[in-house]
Parts: sequence; C-alpha cells; structure tokens
Amino acid sequence: MRNSRRSEVDPFIVMDVMERARQAEATGRRIIHMEVGQPGTPAPAGARAAVARAMEADPLGYTVALGLPALRERIARLYDEWYGVDLDPARVVVTPGSSGGFLLAFTALFDTGDRVGIGAPGYPSYRHILTALGLEAEMIETAPENRLQPVPEDLPAGLDGLLVASPANPSGTMLDRAALAALIGAAQDRGAAFISDEIYHGLEYGRKAVTALEITDDAYVINSFSKYFSMTGWRVGWMVVPEDQIRVVERLAQNLFICPPHVSQVAALAAMDCGDELKANLAVYAENRRLMLEGLPAAGFGDIAPPDGAFYVYADVSDLTDDSRAFAAEILDRAGVAVTPGLDFDARRGTGTLRFSYARATADIAEGLERLRDFMSRR
Amino acid sequence: MRNSRRSEVDPFIVMDVMERARQAEATGRRIIHMEVGQPGTPAPAGARAAVARAMEADPLGYTVALGLPALRERIARLYDEWYGVDLDPARVVVTPGSSGGFLLAFTALFDTGDRVGIGAPGYPSYRHILTALGLEAEMIETAPENRLQPVPEDLPAGLDGLLVASPANPSGTMLDRAALAALIGAAQDRGAAFISDEIYHGLEYGRKAVTALEITDDAYVINSFSKYFSMTGWRVGWMVVPEDQIRVVERLAQNLFICPPHVSQVAALAAMDCGDELKANLAVYAENRRLMLEGLPAAGFGDIAPPDGAFYVYADVSDLTDDSRAFAAEILDRAGVAVTPGLDFDARRGTGTLRFSYARATADIAEGLERLRDFMSRR
Repeated sequence: MRNSRRSEVDPFIVMDVMERARQAEATGRRIIHMEVGQPGTPAPAGARAAVARAMEADPLGYTVALGLPALRERIARLYDEWYGVDLDPARVVVTPGSSGGFLLAFTALFDTGDRVGIGAPGYPSYRHILTALGLEAEMIETAPENRLQPVPEDLPAGLDGLLVASPANPSGTMLDRAALAALIGAAQDRGAAFISDEIYHGLEYGRKAVTALEITDDAYVINSFSKYFSMTGWRVGWMVVPEDQIRVVERLAQNLFICPPHVSQVAALAAMDCGDELKANLAVYAENRRLMLEGLPAAGFGDIAPPDGAFYVYADVSDLTDDSRAFAAEILDRAGVAVTPGLDFDARRGTGTLRFSYARATADIAEGLERLRDFMSRR
Repeated sequence: MRNSRRSEVDPFIVMDVMERARQAEATGRRIIHMEVGQPGTPAPAGARAAVARAMEADPLGYTVALGLPALRERIARLYDEWYGVDLDPARVVVTPGSSGGFLLAFTALFDTGDRVGIGAPGYPSYRHILTALGLEAEMIETAPENRLQPVPEDLPAGLDGLLVASPANPSGTMLDRAALAALIGAAQDRGAAFISDEIYHGLEYGRKAVTALEITDDAYVINSFSKYFSMTGWRVGWMVVPEDQIRVVERLAQNLFICPPHVSQVAALAAMDCGDELKANLAVYAENRRLMLEGLPAAGFGDIAPPDGAFYVYADVSDLTDDSRAFAAEILDRAGVAVTPGLDFDARRGTGTLRFSYARATADIAEGLERLRDFMSRR
C-alpha cells in the first residue's frame, strides 16, 4: 500500500534494548531497568480512589474539549503554589498527555515546511511529530558548557518556532531564569513561537525549575501528569496558551481528540491533592540520584551532564565506545542492566553517549550500580 | 501570537446548541437532549470492575504503542464472531479513540496537499483533521437515492484517498456489500487509499453492517469502543491495517501518542465480554428508533434518510426552513429539545437538515417526540 513521506520517522532505538531485555527476562534472567523513562509507582492512592468513586456515580462520557473546568482551575492554582504565578484557568488546556499538547501546539502554530528549533540531545518524538505533520525539525547542537541546552547564539536564522525543555530529557539539565529569559527573548526577536516543555517540573533536587510563564505570557507551556504525578499510562497532561490562542486550540482539540480521557481527568484532579505520596516518591528519586552520582563515576561513567532534575543521568562515554548501541547491548548482555543508547536523542554525538534512568525502586538502582561497577572492572 | 493556516478549522455548530441548552438548564428548565452523539449509559459493569481490580494490582504505566497484546487478540477474535473474518492480531492497532485512528491513518498515508474524498453529509472532524494536517478534504455531495452515501460515479478525479462510513453519521445509512465493494474497487482502480470508518458497527437494526475486511485486506478499518461498547469518554478505539502498514503505523503511534490510555485498554478488554449488558443497551436504541420512526413523521419530520444503524435520524427540513441553525435554536427555545443543525455535516445542503439523536433513555425520547409534535402543531 502507499505511504506518505511524512510517515518516514525513525524507530526508537531504545525499543531494541527493551525487546532484548524482555527476551532475557523470558529466559528467567533478572534485568535491572535503567532504560525506562517512567516511574515504577502507580497513580497516587487518592487518584485511584477518586476513579473508583466516579465509575459508580458518573457515566464518564465525553468532557468538553478543553477539559473538566474543575481540573483547569486546579491546574491554574498549581502555578500559584509552585511559582507564585497568577494564571487564568481559561488559558489551561487539558490534553491527552504531553503528546497531545505537542500535536495541538504544532498544528496551531506551524504550516507545512515551517522550521522549529530543537536542542540536541533532546526527546526524539519532538522531531518525529514535526515530521509527521509535514514540518521541519531544525536540530541545534548544544554545548556541554551550556548544560547541553541551547543559547541564543546557537539559533539558526529563519526559525518559525523554538522548543526547549527544562529539566531536559535525556540530560536532566535545567535552564535558570536568565538562560530561559534569553532564549524567550531571542525567539520573540525573531518572530518565532516559543514552546516550553516543562514535563519534568516538580522533579528537582536543588534549585526550583523556572516556568516560562514567570517570564512571558506569550508562550505555549506543555506539562503532564505522567512524571511528577506518576501517571504515565493515563495519558493526561496540560498546556497553557496565550489568551489569543484559546479558541484556535479549542477548535483543534475538538476535532483532533474530542476530549482527553475522562477517567484520567478525574484521576488527575485528585492526584493534585496527594502531596504526601508525591513527596515520598520524590524522596525516592533523590536517594536514587545520590546513589547514581556516587556509583556511576565509581563505575567509570564520570563525564555526566549536571543532573538538575528529572530522573536521568546522561553520560559521555565516547572514551569507551564509538557505538553506543553495541555498548548498551553489551551492558545488557554482560551486566543485565538495560540502558538507553544516546542515538535516540542526538543522531551525531549519541554514538558516544548513554542515558541512565533512576526512576525505579532504590534497591534496583543500588543493584544496577553494583553490576555496572563489576562489569566495567572486568571489561 | 502567530497562527498557522492549517489551524483555521471551523468550530462545531452543535456546540452553540449545547451551550444554549446548558444555559437553559442553568435557569432550571428541563431540556431533552437529541443533539448528543453518545450513549447515556456508562461503560459495562464488567469493564468498570476490571478497572477497579487493575488499579490495585498494576501500576498502569505505558503499554506498548500498538496496545495490550491480549486486547489486540480479543479484537481480532471479534472479527470472527461478528463477520466470520479470520484476522491476524498483528494487524490490530489499539488507538486513543477513533480520533487517534484518523490521525494515524492520515499521517501514514498522505502528504501535504494530497486529496481525500469524503461524503457529504459526514462527520465534520474528518475534514478538520485533514486540514490540520495540511491535507485537502474533497467533499463529495451524495444523493438521497444512494442513501446519502457516495457511489463510484461521484468520485472526482485525482483522489489520493477515499474515506467512507457505514453506518454513517449523521444519516445512519449503511452501504451493503455490493455498494461497499464498488467503492473499494473504484478507490483501488484510482490508486487511492481506502479508509472505512466502522465506528457504528454493532448498532444495526435490520441487516448486519459489512466490514471492508470482508472484501479486501488492502484498506484501513477504523473502529472504537465509544458507541456499541458505550465508552465514549474512555478514548479507546482500534484500527486494522494491511500487513505492510503495521511497522509504519507503530512508529507513528510511538511518537504521536506513546500509547492509548492503559486504564481504558483494561476496560475495553473486559467490555468485550459484557455481551448481555451491551445487547440490553442495543434493545433500548431499537425501541427508541421505533418511537422516532413513528413520532418524527407524525410531528412533521417525514423526509428522513433510511436509518439503518447508529443512533441518528437525519431529516430534510428544507420545506420548513433555509436556516437550520435558527430553526434548531427555535426548537430548543420553544420545545426544549436540543437537536443538531445539519451545517456541521454538509456545508451547502445542511441549511435545510437536522440530525436527531436517539442515544439516550427511552422516556426522554418519548417526551422529546411529544414536545416536537406539540411545537410543530403550534408553529
């Protein structure tokens, strides 16, 4: 059958690792999972209880396209709680995950052939969604001395949009207020739409992440209940848009999605008041991170990006390999630890990088680090 | 802020009706809802029980992009149960609603500027999703003598794709095997991809709906748990694709959605074994339909398309009005019955049509019909 050119997106290389890990587990082998970008914890207990109640009281049909009004209000209140930002709930759009946010933002803002700047290394779906929509991803190679984040001098001419993430995936690095403001200013000077991916906000270990809304109202801000709220599989997130964008995003959301999953919106609303459980999850990540920052250099992975937030450590292993895919396969086979080769995030330099995730239980992290040290000492 | 041309999609006119109905209800008035295209019933009890169990036993994180293997297998089995078609589960793609299916199908098949034929009247989001993706919707005006369905002679030259729905929204009319085969053959002769929207299958009242898979493997078939399975708000559906399309759709699904909502997949799998409850729902629609086919002509809405399936009656009211929007507003204000003006479905002839939905409780349908008869007799 025919296929479009826009459908020619790369597969995720991490899927090879996951399939190989699954095969090893099928033979009875125990694998430590440092490849997955999601919490091992379920949605907070309060969220699950709210779902159980709602299923008995409500048919859970379509909601309005922008999401349950109570959820939009609660999200707006989060901006006061987290950042001291006063946000009109009308500007909050509930989305089917941050994936839905990207689809809405890109279709609302860009036409065929428009060029959107993205830092490399970065989340691979950014460029693949752009490709699938007939748009151009303009990869911006970032520098280690800039925390693997773009700076205004890196921006190519003629951008129609700029997308940044802080904390970033795969690096975990953050943009401070000055760095974020400089990028926003540079985008606005060029007439490029600014999109801020803030999906890892809440998962910080030192200074707080800065939202683009502290600096400007003239940006799309994308977030999700997947990470801090531990609800990946529920596919619910949100987006904050400028006031003049609400109607256009609403019309697109009606047509592209009808609405986000109703049951997941119910869970999300309740999850926002489960602070104790979420803080306990965060304490686990903080302990895991402490172990990683001790154990990875001890094992021989010492060249890492500053892991300000999220639950990743991104290591330069170019002194050890020029084929991160083969190296990850070797680590899986010989150490029983699944890690992600950097190629998914950076097509050029990713041959020499690995991403280690510390989203799972602390005992697993400790064991994984021990295995890595043992593997490296025998290599 | 800037906006793309592709974001210039029309709002749903039915939203005006719904907002006006909401305002009337806020003043304490009782409104009968014949505008909504969704069941009033919740997901089957067995589906909800499965969700309650899964929430305690499973973190419900991401699933693989194509969906839970057990659900894909169960859907494949449905094709045997419903149509006697032997289907490889590998060809089944679980999607975030049929909306997700359309996004996947259109991006897998079409490039910017490609032309996709769609019958008018038809579901408005078809053309709006195409527009948002930079594709061209080619509206095909259908004839009453063809049950408001396209026939091969209607197809314009140069189509890259053809999308048909049977039973259709808004008309409820079906394509029989010969009519569907003729359209499939015509599309294939022209090198156009064929997409069959089968979201209303299972909601039939006489002869059974025919799936495109009874005729060809060389088509995209889109379906959903929203209608027959009474799960609109759960946002879970499926798509059957030709074997050579599985990989391209998988890569797109990974990037566009990551996965369909895990909790909804659990509900869907259990819903497929809730036959008794689903048959009881269908019996309600059948009784509602009987009342409609008696009551609408008695009220003065006698020029209707053959309502083979779904839960809609589509009436030609061009002898009563040339402004269906104003007429729907008048019916809402004076009779307290919310109906959908045809303009959402057919930009030209919809000025003279209305869609009546009979998806809700039988007592409401009976009262709505009484109000309509009363309104028309006083008009």
